[in-house]
Amino acid sequence: MHTLIKGGTVVTAEGERRADVLVSGEQVAAVGERIDAPSGTKVIDAGGAYVMPGGIDPHVHMELPFMGTVSVDDFLSGTACAAAGGTTMIIDFVIPAPQQSLLEAYRIWRERARKATADYSFHMAVTWWGPQVFEEMETLCREHGVNSFKHFMAYKNAIMVDDATLIASFGRARDLGAICMVHAENGDLVFRMQQETFERGIHGPEGHPISRPPEVEGEAANRACQIAGVVGVPLYVVHTSCRQAMEAIARAKLAGHRVFGESLVQHLVIDDAVYRAKDWRHAAHHVMSPPFRAPDHQQALWGGLQGGTIEVIGTDHCTFRTNQKAMGKDDFRKIPNGTGGLEERMSVLWHHGVRTGRITPSEFVAATSANAARIFNIHPRKGTIAPGSDADIVVWDPAAHRTLGAAAHHSRNDFSIFDGMHVTGAAAVTMSRGAVLWQNGTLSPVEGRGRYIERPCFTDYARSQTVRNTHCAPTPVERQEFVP
Amino acid sequence: MHTLIKGGTVVTAEGERRADVLVSGEQVAAVGERIDAPSGTKVIDAGGAYVMPGGIDPHVHMELPFMGTVSVDDFLSGTACAAAGGTTMIIDFVIPAPQQSLLEAYRIWRERARKATADYSFHMAVTWWGPQVFEEMETLCREHGVNSFKHFMAYKNAIMVDDATLIASFGRARDLGAICMVHAENGDLVFRMQQETFERGIHGPEGHPISRPPEVEGEAANRACQIAGVVGVPLYVVHTSCRQAMEAIARAKLAGHRVFGESLVQHLVIDDAVYRAKDWRHAAHHVMSPPFRAPDHQQALWGGLQGGTIEVIGTDHCTFRTNQKAMGKDDFRKIPNGTGGLEERMSVLWHHGVRTGRITPSEFVAATSANAARIFNIHPRKGTIAPGSDADIVVWDPAAHRTLGAAAHHSRNDFSIFDGMHVTGAAAVTMSRGAVLWQNGTLSPVEGRGRYIERPCFTDYARSQTVRNTHCAPTPVERQEFVP
Amino acid sequence: MHTLIKGGTVVTAEGERRADVLVSGEQVAAVGERIDAPSGTKVIDAGGAYVMPGGIDPHVHMELPFMGTVSVDDFLSGTACAAAGGTTMIIDFVIPAPQQSLLEAYRIWRERARKATADYSFHMAVTWWGPQVFEEMETLCREHGVNSFKHFMAYKNAIMVDDATLIASFGRARDLGAICMVHAENGDLVFRMQQETFERGIHGPEGHPISRPPEVEGEAANRACQIAGVVGVPLYVVHTSCRQAMEAIARAKLAGHRVFGESLVQHLVIDDAVYRAKDWRHAAHHVMSPPFRAPDHQQALWGGLQGGTIEVIGTDHCTFRTNQKAMGKDDFRKIPNGTGGLEERMSVLWHHGVRTGRITPSEFVAATSANAARIFNIHPRKGTIAPGSDADIVVWDPAAHRTLGAAAHHSRNDFSIFDGMHVTGAAAVTMSRGAVLWQNGTLSPVEGRGRYIERPCFTDYARSQTVRNTHCAPTPVERQEFVP
Amino acid sequence: MHTLIKGGTVVTAEGERRADVLVSGEQVAAVGERIDAPSGTKVIDAGGAYVMPGGIDPHVHMELPFMGTVSVDDFLSGTACAAAGGTTMIIDFVIPAPQQSLLEAYRIWRERARKATADYSFHMAVTWWGPQVFEEMETLCREHGVNSFKHFMAYKNAIMVDDATLIASFGRARDLGAICMVHAENGDLVFRMQQETFERGIHGPEGHPISRPPEVEGEAANRACQIAGVVGVPLYVVHTSCRQAMEAIARAKLAGHRVFGESLVQHLVIDDAVYRAKDWRHAAHHVMSPPFRAPDHQQALWGGLQGGTIEVIGTDHCTFRTNQKAMGKDDFRKIPNGTGGLEERMSVLWHHGVRTGRITPSEFVAATSANAARIFNIHPRKGTIAPGSDADIVVWDPAAHRTLGAAAHHSRNDFSIFDGMHVTGAAAVTMSRGAVLWQNGTLSPVEGRGRYIERPCFTDYARSQTVRNTHCAPTPVERQEFVP
Repeated sequence: MHTLIKGGTVVTAEGERRADVLVSGEQVAAVGERIDAPSGTKVIDAGGAYVMPGGIDPHVHMELPFMGTVSVDDFLSGTACAAAGGTTMIIDFVIPAPQQSLLEAYRIWRERARKATADYSFHMAVTWWGPQVFEEMETLCREHGVNSFKHFMAYKNAIMVDDATLIASFGRARDLGAICMVHAENGDLVFRMQQETFERGIHGPEGHPISRPPEVEGEAANRACQIAGVVGVPLYVVHTSCRQAMEAIARAKLAGHRVFGESLVQHLVIDDAVYRAKDWRHAAHHVMSPPFRAPDHQQALWGGLQGGTIEVIGTDHCTFRTNQKAMGKDDFRKIPNGTGGLEERMSVLWHHGVRTGRITPSEFVAATSANAARIFNIHPRKGTIAPGSDADIVVWDPAAHRTLGAAAHHSRNDFSIFDGMHVTGAAAVTMSRGAVLWQNGTLSPVEGRGRYIERPCFTDYARSQTVRNTHCAPTPVERQEFVP
Repeated sequence: MHTLIKGGTVVTAEGERRADVLVSGEQVAAVGERIDAPSGTKVIDAGGAYVMPGGIDPHVHMELPFMGTVSVDDFLSGTACAAAGGTTMIIDFVIPAPQQSLLEAYRIWRERARKATADYSFHMAVTWWGPQVFEEMETLCREHGVNSFKHFMAYKNAIMVDDATLIASFGRARDLGAICMVHAENGDLVFRMQQETFERGIHGPEGHPISRPPEVEGEAANRACQIAGVVGVPLYVVHTSCRQAMEAIARAKLAGHRVFGESLVQHLVIDDAVYRAKDWRHAAHHVMSPPFRAPDHQQALWGGLQGGTIEVIGTDHCTFRTNQKAMGKDDFRKIPNGTGGLEERMSVLWHHGVRTGRITPSEFVAATSANAARIFNIHPRKGTIAPGSDADIVVWDPAAHRTLGAAAHHSRNDFSIFDGMHVTGAAAVTMSRGAVLWQNGTLSPVEGRGRYIERPCFTDYARSQTVRNTHCAPTPVERQEFVP
Repeated sequence: MHTLIKGGTVVTAEGERRADVLVSGEQVAAVGERIDAPSGTKVIDAGGAYVMPGGIDPHVHMELPFMGTVSVDDFLSGTACAAAGGTTMIIDFVIPAPQQSLLEAYRIWRERARKATADYSFHMAVTWWGPQVFEEMETLCREHGVNSFKHFMAYKNAIMVDDATLIASFGRARDLGAICMVHAENGDLVFRMQQETFERGIHGPEGHPISRPPEVEGEAANRACQIAGVVGVPLYVVHTSCRQAMEAIARAKLAGHRVFGESLVQHLVIDDAVYRAKDWRHAAHHVMSPPFRAPDHQQALWGGLQGGTIEVIGTDHCTFRTNQKAMGKDDFRKIPNGTGGLEERMSVLWHHGVRTGRITPSEFVAATSANAARIFNIHPRKGTIAPGSDADIVVWDPAAHRTLGAAAHHSRNDFSIFDGMHVTGAAAVTMSRGAVLWQNGTLSPVEGRGRYIERPCFTDYARSQTVRNTHCAPTPVERQEFVP
Repeated sequence: MHTLIKGGTVVTAEGERRADVLVSGEQVAAVGERIDAPSGTKVIDAGGAYVMPGGIDPHVHMELPFMGTVSVDDFLSGTACAAAGGTTMIIDFVIPAPQQSLLEAYRIWRERARKATADYSFHMAVTWWGPQVFEEMETLCREHGVNSFKHFMAYKNAIMVDDATLIASFGRARDLGAICMVHAENGDLVFRMQQETFERGIHGPEGHPISRPPEVEGEAANRACQIAGVVGVPLYVVHTSCRQAMEAIARAKLAGHRVFGESLVQHLVIDDAVYRAKDWRHAAHHVMSPPFRAPDHQQALWGGLQGGTIEVIGTDHCTFRTNQKAMGKDDFRKIPNGTGGLEERMSVLWHHGVRTGRITPSEFVAATSANAARIFNIHPRKGTIAPGSDADIVVWDPAAHRTLGAAAHHSRNDFSIFDGMHVTGAAAVTMSRGAVLWQNGTLSPVEGRGRYIERPCFTDYARSQTVRNTHCAPTPVERQEFVP
């Protein structure tokens, strides 16, 4: 079974060129200007549009049990709406309860994910510490293709870990050749500020950003970066939302630490005015952590993306319907945290990023797929278009325009934080391992077609870090005998 | 009883001028060019030297039980050697054991200090948290003149506190109008690095700085500054030793947080080469935390002092003899941490600071007395020379020179980290509340003459912070009714 | 002739205390709690208000010929409105035309200033370079009490100097023990941006900030700081208005360079929305350089003031009436640059600074008088309240409130950029060298009573810089003979 | 004519994989695990080594007339020694004399370069300004494939340009879709410091770094970045050597400006101790601008490379023999500035960068070829290994070791600044457009085989910048009629 995507401009993180792409089965067979396609090859006319690697969103939560409820998009609806937006792979997070076996949790998440229509993988959250965790981390690395461990520095009394656990887990991951990830907010400080805010009589969603000011995030981002630098492990800081976090990561990079930054497309375009909306529902649907920020922080995020402080634009897609958000109608601390964006991510970034000249199409590909693939070690299988790569491909029409909103999206959520936003640039065709999931505005998900993607440890940068740790290891001083 | 100090240049933090100083009893009676002194007035001829406020060292530890031993300078030898160096007041730290009553510890320290020959006061360390601590903080503030609370972010499994305690104590201090202080090192990270270093076969003093790299300090300094900024309490960061800490404080100041910085005179002039000395004794005597740093960090400290990032130069005077240091001869982690410098502080800073043109005489006074007096709310009683101020005065001879070392100092320690350093600039006369303690190279301590100095809360900057906290307090949003 | 100011709280840069102040003739005779005043002493009841040093505004332009017109406040109206606002001394700028003798210009300005009712002094602008300038700088320093030289890095084709002149003048000032000042904007870049903006069809006042973005200022501030640091001369950066400039100065300070920062009270409270006003007159009256900035820059300025990056709050008072502003009605480049604020400075800073808790009353005094006095070497004659100081005193009523505006002010301008602003805190009494100029809302200027104040070179910090330059001077290497 | 490179690991900027490479004629025909090679194909056994794109050094000067002499390596010896080190393309600089036609100079350089054995291209220096320059820039872009314009901010009274020229040229380049480059040192300040240094009696090479401290470079780098940001043109900062420059570039990137950084391999590994060598010859041979720096600056450069502040490692290869250096034996200002490194670049970076774990092999390729190719718009023809790319390939033996020095190198210079340095990692085979120039330690240059490579304007990032400039263009305000 062959497909030829003709007449497009192939864009990868390296650059652009006019070329056709031949897909054979699930993989790319050839990329070039004149390809001899076998007879019977199906042809997709790219019509001058861009042909890109399918998007990879390395930060999503499907059917996540969280804050007393469960996020509404499951692995099927999630991967389907992803495909409608040009994204062909997600990386979700296994989040064990404290004291729960990591492997047990891993199996539960694997089971949930079987219905996915596109490919997926899992980061593992380290939410507690003990010999069992120490052992299971190795098993996950060696046997299950998990090379990334996430740590929540927030959500006190739930999944937050303290510095001792952070350090122990960072050291363990380093020795396994894995990468660490952090949700960077000082959870003790958030907890205190939440109490003070609530006691001050602020019970609505506006209390959410008040209790999580940028300093809370900047502090934690800096702490994680510095700890990772001292321990000698690569670090990926998720959903950075503010100037302070940008500066913390930039400092760490300039000091030579191996740190990667992620921001969410939501934070690039939405500011904190939403929390002061008169309509509780509107405000509550924007409750996520970190919260939306003042516009000068958005400017800092764009700068971070343009200047290389941020490698990846994700979504932290984690959707709750109004009736779920309503759990916190009298207490902002009980509003389930999360927003959606998986379907809109690429269009919104294209519209506000590429069409404004902030980034190039190649940088768009880097931020939406290639960098995630390289960082999480699935490149060149994913994140590029080259012979042998999976045929996760999107034909991207830079001129297609539409208006975003809950009425238009494929998520199960009953609200869209992008409601009413006009965007130009959209996926015309989305192909997952050779199968078209989205074309002509029609979504054709196939339950269970998605595969779990293993991600081995010891990426090139992890190997390099290991060499460096060894190279920099200090040595004892030879001393004269000391007679006290 | 009157004394007239004639013919000198009076230097305060505000400036210099030729003036005489009349002392009546324990206080300054007049400062001016032509003072009518009562008959019988004793005259001290300043001979063109500088006449300054006596030094205040707000960071010392006398007879401190620590790491299984007790520091050798007690309140008498400590205040005496202070006087020999031009310092007329110290602020020591009461350090309760975890679970110990703060008031009980306070009384123990007060008792120990009765023998002092010069004035003293106490910061209180918060080493644990609970309702008792919460209550006793108020008692200390209201009844005992303690307006400053110290927190150790290092020394895990001993006196270290975690972020939750830090935040609770910061909030409490804020409400009491007190100031917070931190020893800024990430203790969890130090603990881990100590283990890794020891296990790697590094058992000597060189393991000390290896396990406490600058990142460990910069991280904690940044964390404390950001937490204090969010909580809304003034902060004083003790013994900052590295570029990262300078930058963390400078950032916080530029963000409008009320943060003060202290460095030790030792860190300004000694670098980390000492830890690689062949002589174990030499290396071990330099073990203190934070450790000495590479020369470019010293440069950063000088810049911090010159540019206003650092307000105070202290010593963290905490002396251990060779036989005490020897407790860690097989394990650097057991070497009692501490060095001396109380007697040398002012000469070393004058020599390396004023004589090199880095700072002015007025800035010298600011760093050695006036700023500490203002920050800890004993100004204008201490830290200046003005009518009504305590006659804590030093006649400073800028041309006197001597060679520092254990043979010359008045400390009980058998080692001096300044051994062999030639310095120019010394106290010719030191007067404590009108009594001469040091003159012509002769020390005349009077056991028990020193007084405990109460320091009330709500300094001007603390009042200002309180106004600001109120002014910036957020308000709830008026909302339409939400019908789920 | 004696006056006793009773019942107030005396505030200086050092602190506050309840005390009375006895004025004899033109000077302060005593400050204390119980002063024996001679009989016949006039009494001013401070009624619990603050008693402060009269304000010093070191950045004003009276009757300045500029951009084809002359600013409307002259030395009489200017010093009078200053007094109404609590300010008792101004430092204006002598600005020679290129090729004009500095001494000749100096004499012209001295002549103009004879009518002043309060004291004044002059900075000298260096607007060109040559042997005559080199010589006249020394004459000004030695014979005329000018210790500060200003350089315009903007206003191309008028008074702008290039780097070569800047460097030559900086070196000369260094050798004379003087301080350098800069208006920091890259004039070449402004010129280019003005052209591009105008050619793009933007002719109104909104073109002013468009052609002078913050980068233009931050660049020049950084350049001046770095050049001053390398040359080894103290530097004072006037009217810094943006985050980039704050960061440039903070960096220089942290590197140990002797740099002082000034911001204008206008920039602290007014943002760039004014330039998009529908009313041309409103927009045009805000045209000054640097322009008003976006709100996040204001936040940075407040942080700079709070954290010590900024020492002085001035006004750059330079007023033009609507008919003068109208010169640029078809071309924003021809609108005379300048706004007023001399009368409002202290009230606006008190209201927005002290009453919000951002700064303390002592810091207010430091920013409005004491720091300027120290930097420009007229302390302790000015800038403090102490025996022997000039009796430039303001009784400051922290509760007085009023609404600012052109109808209320004493400036000759027909517009006030503070129009409609309600402020609390005002001068109840303003005394200039013992004479009351303002009391009970009544202004009593005395033409010609103001005196020219000489300011000698070699302040303490300039002496210190000289020592440092010598101390750091490099030495040649001894070499083996080289045989090519 | 076909060649198959078998058994290696192909490394590009994107990643590594085991693959063979088939070369047909001058281009790569195929890359893959199983390639069907035509019969008669020559086979090179990579033996497990790496197979990389040939190095591109975008910063060299061959047979450059400079400071009264001419650099000794010409286009033949230069491209030959490049090949011996694994580099297959250089970009040199056409440097017109002030007032000289750019096109005339271009033709002279083209003529000189005809003898090259490997490919080359030219940046154009803008050393003066006028309508002719304005016009010729367009001709060069449109007809001669020059898309990069270099500006010297140093070398006063020779080729230095002032800010007005910089700005004019930046604006012109922006409109042409070209990129600007700067040598960032404040030439006015250097000139002054040189005079002061010489007059102070320092005549030897140690005067060179004294007169060019890091502040001089940091200032200029910041200035260029900010000007480029305001003008809206991409910028490439050559040979950055110090922390200040790193920070200037990092700031600009974080602000969203399109700025690229280059450092030289020399600066990464050699510090300023060389200037204090007793041997004049040794010191003089290290005279280049910017000079070598203190070790903490080297650390900053490595951090810059690791963290993405620096994209490219070049050499500024510009060699002078001892007899030429001797022109400045009595005056350091007359020592011709320049050092060599073209042959050593890749080995030194591999040894100190990859073998220490600081960077990965892919990052090595990015820094030594791919990034330069992308920035200067010759990718994917150069800088990668892909079908259709030029067969500029190096087989890199990571285990080969040798000792560097003048005796071993192929440059015509009689001195090597790397003399005695042992390095591991070397080119086993270097192929230029399919022809082997270096193999088994044998160099086989072919005079004149090198081709001039045209580089078109409007790279992807320049197009993006153009869109952005348009998108951000301000608009006029609609106003009410103004009646003065």
